[in-house]
Amino acid sequence: MTETEAPRTAAAPRRGRPGYDKPTLLAACVELFNRHGYEATSMGMLAAHLGISKSAIYHHVESKEAILGEALDDALDALESAFDDVAASGAPPAAQVEAAVRGTLGVLARCMPQVTLLLRLRGNSDVERAAMARRREITRRLGEMIAAAQAAGAVRDDVTPHNLARLTLGMINSIVDWYRADDGTPGHKTTEEMIEAVTGVALGGLRG
Amino acid sequence: MTETEAPRTAAAPRRGRPGYDKPTLLAACVELFNRHGYEATSMGMLAAHLGISKSAIYHHVESKEAILGEALDDALDALESAFDDVAASGAPPAAQVEAAVRGTLGVLARCMPQVTLLLRLRGNSDVERAAMARRREITRRLGEMIAAAQAAGAVRDDVTPHNLARLTLGMINSIVDWYRADDGTPGHKTTEEMIEAVTGVALGGLRG
Repeated sequence: MTETEAPRTAAAPRRGRPGYDKPTLLAACVELFNRHGYEATSMGMLAAHLGISKSAIYHHVESKEAILGEALDDALDALESAFDDVAASGAPPAAQVEAAVRGTLGVLARCMPQVTLLLRLRGNSDVERAAMARRREITRRLGEMIAAAQAAGAVRDDVTPHNLARLTLGMINSIVDWYRADDGTPGHKTTEEMIEAVTGVALGGLRG
Repeated sequence: MTETEAPRTAAAPRRGRPGYDKPTLLAACVELFNRHGYEATSMGMLAAHLGISKSAIYHHVESKEAILGEALDDALDALESAFDDVAASGAPPAAQVEAAVRGTLGVLARCMPQVTLLLRLRGNSDVERAAMARRREITRRLGEMIAAAQAAGAVRDDVTPHNLARLTLGMINSIVDWYRADDGTPGHKTTEEMIEAVTGVALGGLRG
């Protein structure tokens, strides 16, 4: 698939024109947001990129901001769900930290375009600020798990739990800039191997 | 200094209007690029933000892209210089890795707005692509230092040196999102304390 050809679904043609299903349309929009920046991307650019009219886009979504909101929800819902699963496990603190690191890496690998968008927000609208607040809450939750692991003697205590959470997530989040599941990134043939390796480095940093 | 008031220098008034010296003008432009995104920031927005005419900006710089290029050069020159110093030290491999981590953190703390701009580039122009190539070269140099430290048995060898360099720089670079030298970020009262703490965590990850 080239930049100018997006996949067309057989299910959605209307009025004789090729159509897109909504997930495909959203994915193409997120790709363009990540390439040019959300603010620099207009509905006209999205329409031209998709080869359809602006009104065909508005058939699926209310506005550019609604597209952004749905993409950010995808990323944040998945991250929050991963943290909920860890918290519900009742595992010991150090095991929870490890599971949260693995879970976050899994979400990043699965939802990389949406997470990339999330990581680049600047807080220029209510939608962006709400997403950034949810992201900060995830950092806070990891900080709490790290604090419990510090109390259990399993994590270094010369750095605050909140700053350890920020550094750990900074390392984890960097994979969106270099890891590609389908290009055989040297040293990581599969997503599972990448998750294993990054988890090892992140936990090494936390142990000190 | 608020968002709408930029410092005015006594040295540069022309034609009775308050003027800016070039470094002050560049700093204000970089601030706006970081807030709205480079592509979404127009020369008109820069002029309005500075409270001067576009022609007053063109007195100092040729184009918006020239401003970007100068800011990226500031960040990259400082990073390359830090790596040159480390390489010239002739220190053992593990000490070079540690010095490179400290040196990078020092540059980030000193040139945070310019580095923030560098980290958010998308490669949409020759200027951006050239800066991204220089950034990749810095990652490659850290990878070489890490490879030497692996050969000396001082760094874990279950992850490729290049991926360890990417993860380490991912952690280090994250400080631009949360560390502020002047707000007393809890747990890091001074820049030196922040550098000490982040270096400790990064080296912990490398040791495994």
